[in-house]
Amino acid sequence: MERFTIIENFIPKNDAHLLEKAEAAKPVLLERMVLPLAGNVPASLGAGESATYDFGTHRVGYVTLKLGCSGSHPDAPAYFTVQFAEQRSEFEEDPAAYHGWISKGWIQTETLHADRLPCVVSLPRRYAFRYVRLTVLDVSRKYRVVPEGIECRAVSAVDAASVPALGSGDEMLDRIDAVAVKTLAECMQDVFEDGPKRDRRLWLGDFRLQALADYATFDRLDLVRRCLYLFAGTRFPDDRIAACLFTDGEAVADDTWFSDYALFYPVALAEYCQRSGDRETLSDLYEIAQKQIDLTLSMTDGNGVVNHAFVEATFIDWCIGLDKAACAQGVLLYALPFGITLAELQGDTARAARYRDALERGRAAAKERFFDGQCCVSNGQIAPASAVWLTLGGVLTEAEAKEALHSVLSRTTAYPMVSPYLHHYLLEALLKANDPNAAKEHLLAYWGSMVRYGADTFFEVWNPADPDASPYGGKIVNSFCHAWSCTPSYFLRNRLL
Amino acid sequence: MERFTIIENFIPKNDAHLLEKAEAAKPVLLERMVLPLAGNVPASLGAGESATYDFGTHRVGYVTLKLGCSGSHPDAPAYFTVQFAEQRSEFEEDPAAYHGWISKGWIQTETLHADRLPCVVSLPRRYAFRYVRLTVLDVSRKYRVVPEGIECRAVSAVDAASVPALGSGDEMLDRIDAVAVKTLAECMQDVFEDGPKRDRRLWLGDFRLQALADYATFDRLDLVRRCLYLFAGTRFPDDRIAACLFTDGEAVADDTWFSDYALFYPVALAEYCQRSGDRETLSDLYEIAQKQIDLTLSMTDGNGVVNHAFVEATFIDWCIGLDKAACAQGVLLYALPFGITLAELQGDTARAARYRDALERGRAAAKERFFDGQCCVSNGQIAPASAVWLTLGGVLTEAEAKEALHSVLSRTTAYPMVSPYLHHYLLEALLKANDPNAAKEHLLAYWGSMVRYGADTFFEVWNPADPDASPYGGKIVNSFCHAWSCTPSYFLRNRLL
Repeated sequence: MERFTIIENFIPKNDAHLLEKAEAAKPVLLERMVLPLAGNVPASLGAGESATYDFGTHRVGYVTLKLGCSGSHPDAPAYFTVQFAEQRSEFEEDPAAYHGWISKGWIQTETLHADRLPCVVSLPRRYAFRYVRLTVLDVSRKYRVVPEGIECRAVSAVDAASVPALGSGDEMLDRIDAVAVKTLAECMQDVFEDGPKRDRRLWLGDFRLQALADYATFDRLDLVRRCLYLFAGTRFPDDRIAACLFTDGEAVADDTWFSDYALFYPVALAEYCQRSGDRETLSDLYEIAQKQIDLTLSMTDGNGVVNHAFVEATFIDWCIGLDKAACAQGVLLYALPFGITLAELQGDTARAARYRDALERGRAAAKERFFDGQCCVSNGQIAPASAVWLTLGGVLTEAEAKEALHSVLSRTTAYPMVSPYLHHYLLEALLKANDPNAAKEHLLAYWGSMVRYGADTFFEVWNPADPDASPYGGKIVNSFCHAWSCTPSYFLRNRLL
Repeated sequence: MERFTIIENFIPKNDAHLLEKAEAAKPVLLERMVLPLAGNVPASLGAGESATYDFGTHRVGYVTLKLGCSGSHPDAPAYFTVQFAEQRSEFEEDPAAYHGWISKGWIQTETLHADRLPCVVSLPRRYAFRYVRLTVLDVSRKYRVVPEGIECRAVSAVDAASVPALGSGDEMLDRIDAVAVKTLAECMQDVFEDGPKRDRRLWLGDFRLQALADYATFDRLDLVRRCLYLFAGTRFPDDRIAACLFTDGEAVADDTWFSDYALFYPVALAEYCQRSGDRETLSDLYEIAQKQIDLTLSMTDGNGVVNHAFVEATFIDWCIGLDKAACAQGVLLYALPFGITLAELQGDTARAARYRDALERGRAAAKERFFDGQCCVSNGQIAPASAVWLTLGGVLTEAEAKEALHSVLSRTTAYPMVSPYLHHYLLEALLKANDPNAAKEHLLAYWGSMVRYGADTFFEVWNPADPDASPYGGKIVNSFCHAWSCTPSYFLRNRLL
């Protein structure tokens, strides 16, 4: 499924004051030199031969190789590739065979010449990887390349080791938590990146989940605040908050708007304000946050049901063919209470009342339209996502929600949950349905299966029944360290144990 | 024909004093910013699209590209190649299809990512080219790459424009001379390189010809002196002079010895000393130069004929299957008079006498063995190369030489002259046979055909009947600006007009 939007001549509306506050909160990155595990690296490489290094776990950073030579003096440039892989299986994919819909430019491969040997090759780009493969494409017949060493200057805003172990007494839960903490740490750079391999950007849907996990672990409120200011500081000309920002260089809003993501802005701001008590940030960002809700309300009909344009602009999940009407409605109803909280914190009683009214009417209309008494049905389609979001929207009673969720989870569906992002909201929904055991069980089953598969960090996309699935037409561009998968630490540390 | 040697654990014998003198004569390179011709470059490039720049003539230097973008903000790295070609037809070759015996590393192609756009891409390697092709391998669907500009910082020890035009009155001769001067200038860098694309090294056989052409044009005696000191400063442990040196970094002798090339060292030294009157250099390098002849004499039989090991170690030409016995003998006899000149300059009368004796005996034996009264025959094989070198060795009378040369040139041969290098010695031989008209005619026919083919500089390999020939298994690694082809200027300025 190709999914992208292009707005001709899009010029974001920037607010210098807000961007300055974001800049002031820019973190100093921690740097650490790391080496690969000792392993069987060949003493020298001829044409077509390669050496693979295993750095032991996931790394984000800058790599330097030392190359020497054996035989006669090199009489031709050494021609070689350096490939980076988060999962070793990525090496089995042929980059030339990738013809998916996102750019091949994401494939972490460099093709290089060394005119002199020995030499030090300091690659200027940042990579996300555990494995590095050096392949000599060609040398002359007179010499061989000697891989003398490799090191990585790993970077992150935080040190994963600074978070105390979960110590749950359950080895798998501890392991899931540790992988989640590592995932989050690798994504905490200048901003909360969605994934350090791809897209390396500040995505709003991911950010809200990262902030939740951060509060339970690193508690870097400064980085959360920075990102809140960034989203507000560069936005659509009509004040909509963009689905993602480019922050490498001047912060620039992407010309992509996801209607559900925009609603997570007031959600994230409310959670931040509650945790931090930071009234200055609330005051700076309040109006922009509430505008996201107001805009959505202007896209509802007389009964408080979101219109087609809003539904079409939701993300919800990578699942193909999913009818998103019920989900979209659920997201609005999920966000409204956070808007009410913000209004109450800010003393904006008129708005709080207006949102309460919208919430009540929207829930009633949603129940009427999307619930048949047992199942959540969106334009005739029964899918887990609909049950998740109607539950989270408070449309169902606890008992109804529990039944709807279990019912849809127990049946085969053509519209499965594809992203760990949606699985996060399933856990939230199970907790809202007052079924913590089912939530814990699902956490163990779903995230546990990634751990058993060998995850050092949690993946962008994961279907235990189809580990090679990709929404992009090729696993080689999948991100295997993706922030929206890091919330087990939030659940395990705040809600489940 | 694969042609390379490997000596295990080869450690050159270095002479710090000589290398210091070489270093002191290192030229300061002239730098000049050059731009491509105005041309039809597309306004923007999507995946698979390219822009080709024509710099108007051959360039050696460092290239900087400016890349911008159009459409949405770039949401993925731009992935692109930059290819360099001396001849536009190189672009028609598929680098992936080259499987010849020298390294693919010589193919002038870079594969790059731009993480941010707009950007300036300053390529750190030096290229030899007239044409540059920028090809976008992939971008995202949201933007296109805008090729905003390209420039080259061209480098050379000399300025080709500083040499006055030949002004022969013959347009083609003038053009041949200008292309030869340009060829030489492009190869005059820190040393006399054989070719700025490949091998970028100081090869002895090429160097002697470059020095000859230099005396007739730029007259950079300092650069000739530098190279003479380099060859002597790093050599085989038994004092043999290597066929080529690596000079990018510390000077290092290659573990390759061409017996004919080694004899060009006393030839080149004698010519340099005669032109410069530089007695210090003569004194420093005399013994090393004469050792090349002494070593060759130790490889002759009782009649003064070079042995099989010597013959096997000659280069002569890229021609496959050529019997080199007569040629090898001719090269010795060609070098001996230069050794005698050096001995006379140095007052070494004993050596001069010894060389005169060797010359006389060697010529007589050669005539006996390799001349049937009409043709030059090397172990039953009749080839132009044999007639060229026996003529240059003074084995034949003028009349015999003239007849032998014309006879072999007029017949079809299975062992043609492949390299312009050998064509140089054919011209020398025709002049020695007192046939300047034939020499001029051949110069016009052979080098003129390269000019008509579109040469901006003269090629490493040229067979007018087979413009795509390559000794390396693929034209894409051929060098189209090669020093050993630059001697028309020597002939036109010193000997023919």
